[in-house]
Amino acid sequence: MNHFFKVKSLEKVLTLKEQFLSVQAESIPVGKSYSRILAKDVVAPKDLPGFRRATMDGYAVVASATFGASESTPAWLEVCGTILMGDVPNFILEPGKAAKISTGGMLPKGADSVVMVEHSEMIDDLSVEVYKSVAPLQNVIDASEDFSKDEIVLAQGTLIRPQEAGLIAGLGLARIEVFKVPTVGIISTGDEIIPIEEDPAPGKIRDINSYSLSGQIKEAGGQPICYGIVGDDPKALKHAIEKAIDETDMVLISGGSSVGTRDYTVDVLSSLPDTDILVHGMSISPGKPTILANSGDKPVWGLPGQVVSAMVVLKIVVIPFLSKLKGQGVKTKEIKIPAKLSRNVASAQGRRDFVRVVLEQEKGQWVAKPVLGKSGLIRTMIHADGLLEIGEHIEGVEKDTMVDIILL
Amino acid sequence: MNHFFKVKSLEKVLTLKEQFLSVQAESIPVGKSYSRILAKDVVAPKDLPGFRRATMDGYAVVASATFGASESTPAWLEVCGTILMGDVPNFILEPGKAAKISTGGMLPKGADSVVMVEHSEMIDDLSVEVYKSVAPLQNVIDASEDFSKDEIVLAQGTLIRPQEAGLIAGLGLARIEVFKVPTVGIISTGDEIIPIEEDPAPGKIRDINSYSLSGQIKEAGGQPICYGIVGDDPKALKHAIEKAIDETDMVLISGGSSVGTRDYTVDVLSSLPDTDILVHGMSISPGKPTILANSGDKPVWGLPGQVVSAMVVLKIVVIPFLSKLKGQGVKTKEIKIPAKLSRNVASAQGRRDFVRVVLEQEKGQWVAKPVLGKSGLIRTMIHADGLLEIGEHIEGVEKDTMVDIILL
Repeated sequence: MNHFFKVKSLEKVLTLKEQFLSVQAESIPVGKSYSRILAKDVVAPKDLPGFRRATMDGYAVVASATFGASESTPAWLEVCGTILMGDVPNFILEPGKAAKISTGGMLPKGADSVVMVEHSEMIDDLSVEVYKSVAPLQNVIDASEDFSKDEIVLAQGTLIRPQEAGLIAGLGLARIEVFKVPTVGIISTGDEIIPIEEDPAPGKIRDINSYSLSGQIKEAGGQPICYGIVGDDPKALKHAIEKAIDETDMVLISGGSSVGTRDYTVDVLSSLPDTDILVHGMSISPGKPTILANSGDKPVWGLPGQVVSAMVVLKIVVIPFLSKLKGQGVKTKEIKIPAKLSRNVASAQGRRDFVRVVLEQEKGQWVAKPVLGKSGLIRTMIHADGLLEIGEHIEGVEKDTMVDIILL
Repeated sequence: MNHFFKVKSLEKVLTLKEQFLSVQAESIPVGKSYSRILAKDVVAPKDLPGFRRATMDGYAVVASATFGASESTPAWLEVCGTILMGDVPNFILEPGKAAKISTGGMLPKGADSVVMVEHSEMIDDLSVEVYKSVAPLQNVIDASEDFSKDEIVLAQGTLIRPQEAGLIAGLGLARIEVFKVPTVGIISTGDEIIPIEEDPAPGKIRDINSYSLSGQIKEAGGQPICYGIVGDDPKALKHAIEKAIDETDMVLISGGSSVGTRDYTVDVLSSLPDTDILVHGMSISPGKPTILANSGDKPVWGLPGQVVSAMVVLKIVVIPFLSKLKGQGVKTKEIKIPAKLSRNVASAQGRRDFVRVVLEQEKGQWVAKPVLGKSGLIRTMIHADGLLEIGEHIEGVEKDTMVDIILL
């Protein structure tokens, strides 16, 4: 049963994500929205902050009354009141007058700026000297300066970070529409794989992948659901895959995707109704024997059995599909780290290589040091900080070249 | 009630974290350990992987039998069997012989390397030609190559990423000791603050900080617990602070830390038993009016009321304390992004400035563009990707200088 690999490029595989749909939306309290994705645009129902506020402790003034003020020729202003936090000043401030105000306080009508307390001195209860002029709108936030009414403040597909949660709360939206958290089924396959609680006989190995892949799915904002270990038995594998497809939004099958003696994954996937094999082999290393099928409208992956290969494929290939399912529509900035390569790295043409590297500071800049060790060794992932990507048309990268590192 | 600020430097404040203790440890299943911190060293109970495994599909061989093999002068080997995944080969492989093997399979005794299937050709059922020599241990992982018995593989204080979870599972440790998730109480103060569900009258403002600070605490691996809004009433504030100190591991009080007309936070904290004010004012901007007290063995913070100031202080100052409570002992590499500054940025001497910046790619390198806008504007945090730190002894940074950006 020697399948020929019809190897696809990484770009080609990544374009396939467009055929999968986002999961359903749900309404949740904004207090639980951190790390979720907006399913609808957020529109400002009113101006924010809604009134003119002080951004410094000091005196609300009419700016023109301070023009020309200096240490040697201070402006003299009459103190006409104190504005307490949360109060609505019920007077109009005239030029030549000043009202004591705290950061966040509401400016009285007429006032257009705030003199910092550090640039003033109380002469007596009714007068203050100002040593530095202010410009109109200095040390204040205007009524609609943060957002104006009816403005789209956050677009559908935006990832909710702490600041987005704060903004949504500030607009008074107690509940918002977000995409559900996609569930990801994880199946480990292979007669050699045993549960981690068991002591491995020679030739057997514990189920590492269920744990490392689960962690990566959580990190990427999905909810992993483990379906345990299935031996090299096509019937049992088919049953497990069908159950996982039925119950989750995406399925990962780890192991069994190499052209080995017991490669059942493709055969089982091919036998499922309404299922096409989209990818069987990718021109990346590690990760060549990766499989992707669509079963109904759900992506099903066959990942390499080796832990490092599986983790790299998940990071580089599978996570973009998870982002599509999550509804993450706004292009998230992928921040790569510029670093100097510590030594020559060879690479095969026609293949995209991902080399694990450690980042170290040397003379004020990052140096990327390739991690030595084989891709079956999880210790290499423990040491690594990131991945160096080497393109298909490059035979290698020379020492001291500046490269961009994908953070792990 | 005009407190004098005894302003402390950032370094000085950060050293204070050493006086706080980590939270208690607990035993949890490794499957739930992602993003937690190890409370004990993890020691390898056995060698990992435990036996010599193939890292490629091909033929297990004695390397010396392939020496000198090439396309024109292949080595001819006798095929003596096939090793299935999970099997323990019950024969000794002699030089000149080869056994078919898949990635992950156990090498038979005698075999020291694997010839890749791509570098071989089956002649008939009993013989194979090898077109490329292999070195001993090529394309295999040796029994203890990942970790040796009794080696400390992960130290106490290590953050458990997906790869650490995988490694712990691979060692057969179904449960591990981790530090509990510290709980962080959040109190919003000020007569001007109203619940987000309410429509703010002029002068009032919705409680943004409870939501943005909660998100940041979650992001940093803590569990936020919100205690709601307390008006400018010393008795009510004291009651809320006492309750939060009693029920959580760290307390954040947002608002009320500026030297304003209603600054009660310091007075209330000073009145608590077994409580010292450690910091009242820091030489950073934004964030100058930050307060830190220790109440018993717990840190209690007074944060600025302005949302951006509060978020920056949390990121730069409070999170290192949370890491100490979490037990994060191993120094985590803080990855800053080298970028070219897009314009001159002024800064005051004697003050550590944190300037919000957007990162943009230009000509293959990152350019850091300062975000314009006042620190009361949450929109500036929505746009920002990171923070530029400008030291106390620097008057400003010139355009085109290479700077290191702290990611937000």
